[in-house]
Amino acid sequence: MSKFKTTLIVALCAAAGLSASTRLRQAPASVTSTHDPKLIEDLVYANRILYDQGVVDAFGHVSARDDKDTNRFLLARSVAPALVTSSDILEFDRNGEPIDAGGRAVYLERFIHAAIYRARPDVKAIVHSHSPAVIPFGVTGTILRPIDQMSAFLGAGAPIFEIRDAAGMTNLLITDNKLGDALAKALGDKAVVLMRGHGSVAVGDSILQVVHRAIYTEANARLQAEAARLGPINFLTPEEAAKADAVTDSKASISRPWELWKARIGKIE
Amino acid sequence: MSKFKTTLIVALCAAAGLSASTRLRQAPASVTSTHDPKLIEDLVYANRILYDQGVVDAFGHVSARDDKDTNRFLLARSVAPALVTSSDILEFDRNGEPIDAGGRAVYLERFIHAAIYRARPDVKAIVHSHSPAVIPFGVTGTILRPIDQMSAFLGAGAPIFEIRDAAGMTNLLITDNKLGDALAKALGDKAVVLMRGHGSVAVGDSILQVVHRAIYTEANARLQAEAARLGPINFLTPEEAAKADAVTDSKASISRPWELWKARIGKIE
Amino acid sequence: MSKFKTTLIVALCAAAGLSASTRLRQAPASVTSTHDPKLIEDLVYANRILYDQGVVDAFGHVSARDDKDTNRFLLARSVAPALVTSSDILEFDRNGEPIDAGGRAVYLERFIHAAIYRARPDVKAIVHSHSPAVIPFGVTGTILRPIDQMSAFLGAGAPIFEIRDAAGMTNLLITDNKLGDALAKALGDKAVVLMRGHGSVAVGDSILQVVHRAIYTEANARLQAEAARLGPINFLTPEEAAKADAVTDSKASISRPWELWKARIGKIE
Amino acid sequence: MSKFKTTLIVALCAAAGLSASTRLRQAPASVTSTHDPKLIEDLVYANRILYDQGVVDAFGHVSARDDKDTNRFLLARSVAPALVTSSDILEFDRNGEPIDAGGRAVYLERFIHAAIYRARPDVKAIVHSHSPAVIPFGVTGTILRPIDQMSAFLGAGAPIFEIRDAAGMTNLLITDNKLGDALAKALGDKAVVLMRGHGSVAVGDSILQVVHRAIYTEANARLQAEAARLGPINFLTPEEAAKADAVTDSKASISRPWELWKARIGKIE
Repeated sequence: MSKFKTTLIVALCAAAGLSASTRLRQAPASVTSTHDPKLIEDLVYANRILYDQGVVDAFGHVSARDDKDTNRFLLARSVAPALVTSSDILEFDRNGEPIDAGGRAVYLERFIHAAIYRARPDVKAIVHSHSPAVIPFGVTGTILRPIDQMSAFLGAGAPIFEIRDAAGMTNLLITDNKLGDALAKALGDKAVVLMRGHGSVAVGDSILQVVHRAIYTEANARLQAEAARLGPINFLTPEEAAKADAVTDSKASISRPWELWKARIGKIE
Repeated sequence: MSKFKTTLIVALCAAAGLSASTRLRQAPASVTSTHDPKLIEDLVYANRILYDQGVVDAFGHVSARDDKDTNRFLLARSVAPALVTSSDILEFDRNGEPIDAGGRAVYLERFIHAAIYRARPDVKAIVHSHSPAVIPFGVTGTILRPIDQMSAFLGAGAPIFEIRDAAGMTNLLITDNKLGDALAKALGDKAVVLMRGHGSVAVGDSILQVVHRAIYTEANARLQAEAARLGPINFLTPEEAAKADAVTDSKASISRPWELWKARIGKIE
Repeated sequence: MSKFKTTLIVALCAAAGLSASTRLRQAPASVTSTHDPKLIEDLVYANRILYDQGVVDAFGHVSARDDKDTNRFLLARSVAPALVTSSDILEFDRNGEPIDAGGRAVYLERFIHAAIYRARPDVKAIVHSHSPAVIPFGVTGTILRPIDQMSAFLGAGAPIFEIRDAAGMTNLLITDNKLGDALAKALGDKAVVLMRGHGSVAVGDSILQVVHRAIYTEANARLQAEAARLGPINFLTPEEAAKADAVTDSKASISRPWELWKARIGKIE
Repeated sequence: MSKFKTTLIVALCAAAGLSASTRLRQAPASVTSTHDPKLIEDLVYANRILYDQGVVDAFGHVSARDDKDTNRFLLARSVAPALVTSSDILEFDRNGEPIDAGGRAVYLERFIHAAIYRARPDVKAIVHSHSPAVIPFGVTGTILRPIDQMSAFLGAGAPIFEIRDAAGMTNLLITDNKLGDALAKALGDKAVVLMRGHGSVAVGDSILQVVHRAIYTEANARLQAEAARLGPINFLTPEEAAKADAVTDSKASISRPWELWKARIGKIE
């Protein structure tokens, strides 16, 4: 996977004079001034880290529940996650509509976030991605299950959302609240849901936890696919998964990789 | 895949004094002065991006239909795509002959481009590559089909060109117009054609679209090969592919990755 | 795998002002002043190299038997190996308890090291990792055996530790001396032991040897998994493995890659 | 595979003050002053390129037949190829003994080179490597055959050398002329020979050609292994391979990637 990409990209953008002036012209009232700066900073890091770790490419997005109004959430304008800066973060209402986009384009699939925040009060952050090792599981109906203690949050297996069951033949995208609700229903009370022919969604109780889960969901998919070629897999039992999850998915455990992943990105603006 | 390679390569070339003087001596009337500078710039970026994204190595090439004379097309002299600069872009006639190469070597397989531009008036840009995940499909007769919405342009599957049917035992290369016409016939009205024992060709209605298709053709091949090992694949149906294609292969959708890919390259000369 | 990551990370940390002041505030009596500086330097390089070579990610750790008191060992505080500096190295007693952690968090699984140093007087250095190619072997019960002369230290095959046999349903982690002893027993007199659903442990008679073994264990796992797909594998016989091991696992042989791996990291602090 | 590693490594070495003074002290009469500087430069580039392209790691070596005395050959002292500079190049006689090593260690397996130069007057350069995609072919007895025109030099398939047939149970290494002769016999008049449980050797009529062949042998192994999982492979026929080889293995064709590979390395010392 790529290394220090986002740091270098931003430096290159600056050097090339790309988009900076455009952004300044378009900037609405910044969410930075009205929200916890730490939350915004973590959300920008989350965008960059997910690209650096190979979970998102030019597509995919990460959001956080609003710290001022829990009916709202924070999500970047429509831009590649690797290029997100704090001035790109917008606020959205519970139906997925931007409060003030300042004329900027927003993600078509923001309803993934809106629907899950409505259905799951415990969820504080959401990642949607097309992370490559996970997609083969969705299209073959293979259940993603925890290979090791790092992916114990997968529990007894991640459900797969079949959009045909909800809406027949579509373009596969979650472009309205009805589709969002169907996806949220498939997710249920789990940590991860796969989307057949599309990608996956991970949820968490913090930005750090959801980034951790998104990265280790991809890692588990790589390991499980590889192991399946060697022979039948001895997965974690539900009891092992529950016990391991209590340790590896905890705040203490997830802060160690977060510090490394941030160090790889360096300072952000 | 490699990161920031082309930026660094150009810097290294400059530092090493490689080839620059040679180029100056050989330079014919530059196409830059007689064509839309934006088209030339996009074509140079396309070369660099395709290398950075692992679609081409030292071989492979990308062309654009001429904006001044639709019977002509623009293509670099014979050089690795990662090293292409605007002064390397040459103009070719409808038969694949250079208008003024200034003594510089041209690609042996320029007839791929000439033949497809003749056969497909809708095509404005073409990529030929040996992108690695696609080659195994051609040599095993496995049909490349859309795994997810990003590759919906593959429709009901990419055709495979068998050069033996057209010309018996050859060196596999498309080195004249007769072979080019046979390849164009195999492509038909599709977006992508595989070449058994050789590589593939993608076409598009713009440089941005063809680069997008070339990159996601390779991505789909990786995903499909991986999924095939897990079990039977639930591909997009033709109806799903058509609906998804209308969104994911559109100008609005393909500009987001293009901006990211350009940012990874930085300024070009 | 990533390149020059650790060098860049440290540079980025410095640039970002991350953690440096925190570390200074927390620093206990430094082990650097009371131990062989060469041993500490090698241990810091080992941490960085194992990350650079893809053996460890944010998790995993490497220790060395104490040169002043062979009942003790040296191991970093709880931090990602890529970020380890000499001031992070702590001293632990034979039961895995830190002599003076200066209030800093220590690895939960330090008992892996304590137990093996107790059981194996010949062992001078230990690596625990979740190196990705090895995990599929543990969960499928596939025996890792030497494919080529570089992995001759695997001998007749690496044993697999099943924590369920020792302790039933657990969180998979080696968090006390009882579990550590069970793991050490499974290792026996071998060079490597796999841990089902978790990772693996390599041991050696020096930091250089254990780093070499950890890297080539991962390399062998990649090669063996790939070869298994092509057909039945003609492994090294025990006699070949013993003869090759005498050369490839020797001090003369392992110093060549060590110099390369160090050069990739550059100067450390 | 890694990017710009060798350039950075050398810079890092310089920055770290590693080995430079040692080298100066040990330097014998330099081969640079008595041989074609272009040959030495190409040989140093070959070392660096083979590492940058993932063919060699810390092990493996590349030699060139001596331009002054065709009974002799040029090969680096025992050092990782990524770190080779012109002052590391030594001269060896037809029996694989160094003319003047200046006290420096030489590669154990220099007899690979000596034996093949004796047996094959047409061979001007040799690469020995453990390139990872090739090893699984040797240990499973799978014949490496040309998947596409780039690997046409593989002809009707690369032979596999089984050292047990020549010498029974060994350490797998070619550490004397008798073993070297057995290997050269297995190679015959081919371009590539695989060594079961060890690696492979490629030969060529120039440094450029052998580097090209070593890189595309590894590429072909990756493609063939991948294709074998999709279904039976339609390889190039011997006639196609012969025709393609006349183009893709020619001086005109191999200079394009060589320029790219050199540009990735930058200036050498």
